[in-house]
Amino acid sequence: MTDPAARPLDVRKQDTLRRLAEDVDAWIATASPDGTAHLMPLSFLWTNGTLLMSTTATNPTARNFERNPEFQLTLGHTRDVIHITATCERVDPADVLPEEGEAFARKAGFDPRPLKNYPFYRATPTKILAWREVNELKDRTLMQAGAWLV
Amino acid sequence: MTDPAARPLDVRKQDTLRRLAEDVDAWIATASPDGTAHLMPLSFLWTNGTLLMSTTATNPTARNFERNPEFQLTLGHTRDVIHITATCERVDPADVLPEEGEAFARKAGFDPRPLKNYPFYRATPTKILAWREVNELKDRTLMQAGAWLV
Repeated sequence: MTDPAARPLDVRKQDTLRRLAEDVDAWIATASPDGTAHLMPLSFLWTNGTLLMSTTATNPTARNFERNPEFQLTLGHTRDVIHITATCERVDPADVLPEEGEAFARKAGFDPRPLKNYPFYRATPTKILAWREVNELKDRTLMQAGAWLV
Repeated sequence: MTDPAARPLDVRKQDTLRRLAEDVDAWIATASPDGTAHLMPLSFLWTNGTLLMSTTATNPTARNFERNPEFQLTLGHTRDVIHITATCERVDPADVLPEEGEAFARKAGFDPRPLKNYPFYRATPTKILAWREVNELKDRTLMQAGAWLV
């Protein structure tokens, strides 16, 4: 296990913004009202400080978004954690900016706009944590109540 | 995006068992009774058909395990998904087999046995899905109701 020196907050923020721009998929954890956890990967586009995603309206992740827009997501690696608490709102495909729709399709590998029952969901982060190993658990908070701390 | 031919079920099972043996961390999605999702990485040991984990009794994942033992977990990669629904039970460190405790400490990089408030949790899979790309979404179920289908 590599365990280099803990990164200062500003470096963690730069690294986090790069991962948000470059990573294709995120793990999306939602909960149903009866307290059942659901975990699925979704592709996302980082645009205007939000994560734009799309999935069929009938799948459990979408149904949970509709009933409880608060959820948590992480980007890929368990030893380079980017952990985001976010609030999600449904966006009609017609209300997504054309350049966002195109960028999403390019990154995700599919274009939901002409599809039936494929709404977009726009997630606005309220809290962002970033850490690699145990020595970075301290000072892992980069965003609190929607505001970057650095 | 590589998109080779879909793997037959028996190959997916072999790949899944190898990942369970070799991967160190899993993403653990739990929910609190009020329907709040929680997503965290935990190290695990695959032993006797179960995933052995450990975390402080006071953290949200542990508290959610105590209140609702049903949860979902995935192994690392979003394009090589191993998706497990499992039931979790708390195990007193004294009730973990010595060889399990030692193997866990070696793999996880810490030994919870001498620590205070670090119970083990043993997760028994009830459902396992495995897929890489869209072409593997069909036939992704490897275990149903606790029984391997292959």
